[in-house]
Amino acid sequence: MRKPDWVIAKERAKRAAAAETVWLFGLHAVRDALANPRRTRLQLVVTKNAADRLGEAIAAAGLTPRIVDTRKFAAHVPIAPDSVHQGAALEVRPLDWGPLEEVCAARPGAGRPLVLLLDRVTDPHNVGAILRSAEVFGAAAVIAPRRHAAPETGALAKSASGALERQPYLRVGNLAETMDRLKGMGFVVIGLDGTASEPIGAALAATAGRAVALVLGAEGPGLRERSRATCDRLARIPAAGAFGSLNVSNAAAVALYAARWPDGGR
Amino acid sequence: MRKPDWVIAKERAKRAAAAETVWLFGLHAVRDALANPRRTRLQLVVTKNAADRLGEAIAAAGLTPRIVDTRKFAAHVPIAPDSVHQGAALEVRPLDWGPLEEVCAARPGAGRPLVLLLDRVTDPHNVGAILRSAEVFGAAAVIAPRRHAAPETGALAKSASGALERQPYLRVGNLAETMDRLKGMGFVVIGLDGTASEPIGAALAATAGRAVALVLGAEGPGLRERSRATCDRLARIPAAGAFGSLNVSNAAAVALYAARWPDGGR
Repeated sequence: MRKPDWVIAKERAKRAAAAETVWLFGLHAVRDALANPRRTRLQLVVTKNAADRLGEAIAAAGLTPRIVDTRKFAAHVPIAPDSVHQGAALEVRPLDWGPLEEVCAARPGAGRPLVLLLDRVTDPHNVGAILRSAEVFGAAAVIAPRRHAAPETGALAKSASGALERQPYLRVGNLAETMDRLKGMGFVVIGLDGTASEPIGAALAATAGRAVALVLGAEGPGLRERSRATCDRLARIPAAGAFGSLNVSNAAAVALYAARWPDGGR
Repeated sequence: MRKPDWVIAKERAKRAAAAETVWLFGLHAVRDALANPRRTRLQLVVTKNAADRLGEAIAAAGLTPRIVDTRKFAAHVPIAPDSVHQGAALEVRPLDWGPLEEVCAARPGAGRPLVLLLDRVTDPHNVGAILRSAEVFGAAAVIAPRRHAAPETGALAKSASGALERQPYLRVGNLAETMDRLKGMGFVVIGLDGTASEPIGAALAATAGRAVALVLGAEGPGLRERSRATCDRLARIPAAGAFGSLNVSNAAAVALYAARWPDGGR
């Protein structure tokens, strides 16, 4: 008997995900990934100079690097010609953070559970900065759709400045369904929307004590219709004037700060 | 009688500043600069397609553009080969915002006067994002040293997404002297420092009602010694965990939000 189409599609997606690899580059990103026991590392390509500088990290990871000539480095790894690789590139698998329910489970003593969902935020520099803010303000996870999101590339790793190794970044099939699952876990889902009447501080105060999921859309289009409709409430970051708008990573940082420290951390 | 060296140096710096020009590129940045009556515009280079798309803005500005062939565009303007110029480049003078004392004077009804100083923050993408946040949260000015700061380039203009035309960005000879001038105007000067014991919310609450100048250093080195010593107080953005750090534009956004909306804008 032939397998149903949806089973075949699911198996194919699983195989593709298992085969997916990411090249991280730059001394900082490579050192962080070498130090992370959760990383599956496939191959390390370094110049002699980078091998010396990463000596301890390479030894600790028990990896045998391929040492290549500095001038021929770019020929050995699939890196954009203008990238700042510092002579170090590491092929890895995307991190497996485990199921949503476990990653986003409440942790005693950690304060209000907090997650951040990104609706089609695709710029890797912005997502890298967002992972840093999520880590600093103690978000359990940053969640993005598998498609139309910033993939775990070297550019993202570099902007994340180490946070990619530590901050759960989950890719899901469907963002609205994930919002519903979070609601089922007790989260209140607040969408950021510049046209909303409620300021974010008021929305957070009105839901104090509950786990909170913040949803941000891309600059320009904002939240997609289905995402917006799935939110429990919409809120805006209040502006002082009539002009301008925040960069998306700046908006995320402000929303995470407001959620984590409703009284300014006093 | 020969002029003293310092007079010659000062005159030379003044002439250099007057001769300084900036190339802005991309439809968005060029349209914004064309619409800004405060901008001194020197020449506009566009492809036929960009001329059509900017038609109204060009007519309103009363400028005669030089129309060039799309494939030869990069040969006509000093733009990095990988820049996204969209066939539009405008040579302008840096904006003259006027003297510090006027730009940073208290405005009735505008809330707590707020300025942001950047101590050697050089990345144009970060400074562009910071100008956006400064505009949104109503900072009177973003102030940076003339040297070791992000110049008003096309990359900055692009990241600033229009805010470069509207948000005062002052370049000063000496940052610590400017901090002292702001103190003389009644500002309390708060330096952001990850090792400080006081959370930013507490520092702002303790100085409520006073004009506030926030000082941020570059990622890594942080505030220079003299800048740090010139601050009235040091404060940190409180973190939830032990690891990680904020991107500098994200830190600026959080600090500006905390200063503008001490109660979360409720």
